[in-house]
Formats: sequence, C-alpha cells, structure tokens
Amino acid sequence: MKRGSRLLREAGFRWIGVEAGEYKPKGSDFFLTTKQILLGLGDRSAGLSFETRYLEIQPGGYSTLEKHAHAHAVVVLRGHGRVILDQEICELSPLDCLYVAPGCIHQFHATGDEALGFLCIVDRNRDRPRSPSPRELDRLRSDTRVAALMKTSTDRRP
Amino acid sequence: MKRGSRLLREAGFRWIGVEAGEYKPKGSDFFLTTKQILLGLGDRSAGLSFETRYLEIQPGGYSTLEKHAHAHAVVVLRGHGRVILDQEICELSPLDCLYVAPGCIHQFHATGDEALGFLCIVDRNRDRPRSPSPRELDRLRSDTRVAALMKTSTDRRP
Repeated sequence: MKRGSRLLREAGFRWIGVEAGEYKPKGSDFFLTTKQILLGLGDRSAGLSFETRYLEIQPGGYSTLEKHAHAHAVVVLRGHGRVILDQEICELSPLDCLYVAPGCIHQFHATGDEALGFLCIVDRNRDRPRSPSPRELDRLRSDTRVAALMKTSTDRRP
Repeated sequence: MKRGSRLLREAGFRWIGVEAGEYKPKGSDFFLTTKQILLGLGDRSAGLSFETRYLEIQPGGYSTLEKHAHAHAVVVLRGHGRVILDQEICELSPLDCLYVAPGCIHQFHATGDEALGFLCIVDRNRDRPRSPSPRELDRLRSDTRVAALMKTSTDRRP
C-alpha cells in the first residue's frame, strides 16, 4: 500500500499481525488483562502522535489502580464492566465512551461472563503511571462501594 | 465526577450529549455522511491532544476524496465499506483497524444495506484537508477500479 497506509484485520478481537501481550510488566498489580497496540507504536505508523491500544480484561479481572498526568480516551468494544474514577464508580457497556482526566485515579474491572474489551487511546509520549499514595488510598476506601471494588497490590490474587 | 472525567453513553450509535453534525462545511464534496466529536474538542476534555470522532456514512454515501499531512487512526464499529488509499481499494468490516498515512489520498464509501460507522482519531491540531491535484486525479483514474469508485466534485449527486 502506498505511502505506508495499512489495514489490520480483526478476527475474534485479535488483530492480525499484532501481538497480544501482557498489559504491564511483571510485578504490576493487574489480573487477567492483555493489551494489543494496534497503531502508533514504532515506525510503521510514524505519522501518529498517539497510540490506539485494545485492552481486554477477562471476567473477574482488573487493570492497575493508577493515576498519571496524561489523559485516556476509551471506547468500549465488548462486554461489561465497572470503572473506578476517583470516588465514583461507572458501569461500562459496549460503545460507551469515557474520558479519564489527568490525575484521576482509575481502575477497570470486568463484570459478567464475557471479557471487557476497550480501545484506550493515549499520547505516544506520556508520563509513567503511578500508584495512589497511602493518603489517596485511604480517601478512596472511605467510600464503601469503592473500597469493595478496588484492588491494590495487597489484594493480589494467588 | 471528580477532576473532569466523564462518561458518554451510547444508544444506537449516537452518544448522549454529543451533537451529530455535518461531516464538513457546506460545499465540501461528500454524501450522506455525519460526524460526532466524542472527545478532544473544547475544554471538557482538555487533557487530550487528539480528537476521537465517530463518522457515519449511510448506504451509498461517501466521504470527501482528500489528503492532508496528518494521519488517521480508524476503527470500524459498524457496517461494511470500501476505502480508497491512493491507488489501492480496501474492504472494511467491523473492528478492522486502518492507518491512513500522511499524504495518502483517501475516500470512504459505505457498501451494503447498513451504515458504515467508524472511529476516526486525529491530532487536535492538524492541517486542513486538500483536494487532490488534477495530476493526482489523473493518476488515480488510471486504475479502472479506483476510477469506478471514486467520487469528486464533478460527480456530485443531485
């Protein structure tokens, strides 16, 4: 294809030619979550200043509880879930679109019997995620619904 | 919701609180195409350097034949279509992911009985699309398949 345009075909929420890898390095606190970087990584889509990633969380799984200075644009493609956004919890269904603002502590959870899959678009150049501080964790836990849902490294499953 | 995060709920490929407007200003050469800017416009998602838009083309419709220096990241959400990418034509189906490289002349067409709907993500700050030059149009028309599919201002429907 001229000038470097290219098409990635999908089959069963896997994109051909894209590796479905670990969501984060080992040791990070997540569960049953994988990531495919569809576009915006490396030289093959060098014209993009942002990454288009597909994250998938199996039933019962969750992403890291974290915050960072960059924002997320999220569009749900499959399944159902809940997301912690500071002290709020939002239900997620297919095609819901979410803005995660800079500095917002967030964590995605898959609920129901199907995987929760969503596009998560971020700046290519961005800061590293950080864990909430002990004080921030205490504040989150002051809400009983958030306390019941959130998972931290001390809750890690066997 | 704290710190400005927010959720846009979807219903029938319309996002609540998002205007479904014209795809381009009047006089541009498109047909049966609408646009919703989900995130990245204005102050309410100021942390994003890119816009997440949803474009929808009704059966028989098409987007503008154009090129620009910025790239597109596209993820198909519904329907079927074809896209011209310089002198190539690619078939599009739900969840296919497309990189439109800088400078690539492109045009989306809805085929089949359902609307073609896709996310199209672009830099918030970007150059304006331009029409292909007469020489570029001649080059495109030298491919009979492209010539049969492409629509320009001289092909505009009544």
